[in-house]
Amino acid sequence: MHRVVISNGVFNGLSGLNVNPLHLLDKVRIVLSHTSHPGNIGGAARAMKTMGLDSLYLVNPRFFPDKEAERRATGALDILHKAKVCDTLDEALSGTVLAAAVTARQRDLSHEVFDGRQGATKLLDLAQKDFVALVFGTEMSGLTTLEVSKCQIIIHIPANPEYSSLNLASAVQVMAYELRMACRDLLETPPASPTLTLHGGGMAATFDEIELLYAHLEQVAISSGFLDPQEPKRLMQRMRRLFARARLEKEEVNILRGILSACEKRM
Amino acid sequence: MHRVVISNGVFNGLSGLNVNPLHLLDKVRIVLSHTSHPGNIGGAARAMKTMGLDSLYLVNPRFFPDKEAERRATGALDILHKAKVCDTLDEALSGTVLAAAVTARQRDLSHEVFDGRQGATKLLDLAQKDFVALVFGTEMSGLTTLEVSKCQIIIHIPANPEYSSLNLASAVQVMAYELRMACRDLLETPPASPTLTLHGGGMAATFDEIELLYAHLEQVAISSGFLDPQEPKRLMQRMRRLFARARLEKEEVNILRGILSACEKRM
Repeated sequence: MHRVVISNGVFNGLSGLNVNPLHLLDKVRIVLSHTSHPGNIGGAARAMKTMGLDSLYLVNPRFFPDKEAERRATGALDILHKAKVCDTLDEALSGTVLAAAVTARQRDLSHEVFDGRQGATKLLDLAQKDFVALVFGTEMSGLTTLEVSKCQIIIHIPANPEYSSLNLASAVQVMAYELRMACRDLLETPPASPTLTLHGGGMAATFDEIELLYAHLEQVAISSGFLDPQEPKRLMQRMRRLFARARLEKEEVNILRGILSACEKRM
Repeated sequence: MHRVVISNGVFNGLSGLNVNPLHLLDKVRIVLSHTSHPGNIGGAARAMKTMGLDSLYLVNPRFFPDKEAERRATGALDILHKAKVCDTLDEALSGTVLAAAVTARQRDLSHEVFDGRQGATKLLDLAQKDFVALVFGTEMSGLTTLEVSKCQIIIHIPANPEYSSLNLASAVQVMAYELRMACRDLLETPPASPTLTLHGGGMAATFDEIELLYAHLEQVAISSGFLDPQEPKRLMQRMRRLFARARLEKEEVNILRGILSACEKRM
């Protein structure tokens, strides 16, 4: 993982330090309220760990600890083992500066509503200095109005209005993913656009090598009888367009010309 | 849901019609190869439905149909019931113009690699005219090299390098979510210019047509004496990589095969 120096902008509070934005994830709590199925707690722990989160709070889980939770957590047992079990949501949110209620359904407009992407950015912004939380409700009925009222913003995960019932662990996965993506966006140098690096790491063929390939291909197209040189139409234009898109490598040109030469020898 | 009129740019083919980008999701197949745990198939179906996808293909699932799959699918039983069970990946990809291999691990650089967000945009771009597919491997070992070689691009879901093992249904959830978000982005800001157009405006060749081209090319490479079938090395892998980058059109496949046939006749 790259480390970058970020000395201004949203990183005000840390100016001058070596900051890895992924460390911001340590400040994000995942709070699951009144979870019914322990398997979902395990699934949530696994989802968190895959994205680099590790702070799990459980408000009155129905069953915990639990074998099914451990089974679904697979490699994220450490997160389960250090999960904090709380009696109330207040306890789980103690010390946080921003709590976001996550819902896949549209709620009343009593809160500022953000989508998952905007919400993740919002949380990370504050996580530079303080603890923040993402709060998820029960599998059947989500968060109560009282619980939502303890949060400062709502995060709505865009979903199919005809069936918006994300599995709890899946909702945690989506938000954990968005948090990790938001960290990546904070890294100063975004990855080069893949459209600019279309060849797979080999040496790019030069203009001259590619021109020789076109000439060779045209010659074989003619000598094989496929192309009538009196009426060439746009055949070679089409081939140029095709190979231009591919950004040929030296070795690929060699293979193609090798096949053409072998054919010529047999003809 | 808003409806927008998009009369130019990437929506050429649909100009003048009322187009809802969410309909593009109907063209996206979710392909699960050799899934071990039927619960994951159910979880994937549910994840798909929450984001508006409904085309599920199962390549040799270990158990299907299955009670546990139905339990985990909850409200997405319809997707399970119309899932297509296939014997081979080729069968599941038949008729598609772009297949993306999804992986949470870094692979060798034999393919163009996109992150989930870029990959979703790429897929939707082609889904305007044709079928596309997202291909997921087994829970334990992911996709085989052979399976990846049948795909044209790799989608890498950014993850914790120390534990990148997303649950299969969770990985489907993340990609389904990114597809829905990409639809929403199309709704809000239809791209002004067709910067994303991957092929030159002609009809994209299908998986089947391209596989026949590879078979034909290999046959000529052998019959011309260029390729020793006893020691094929990685020649066809290299050719697959080259043409995968190019996104072949039907007419280009026809030209290439025409040249190959003409050579064969003379040899």
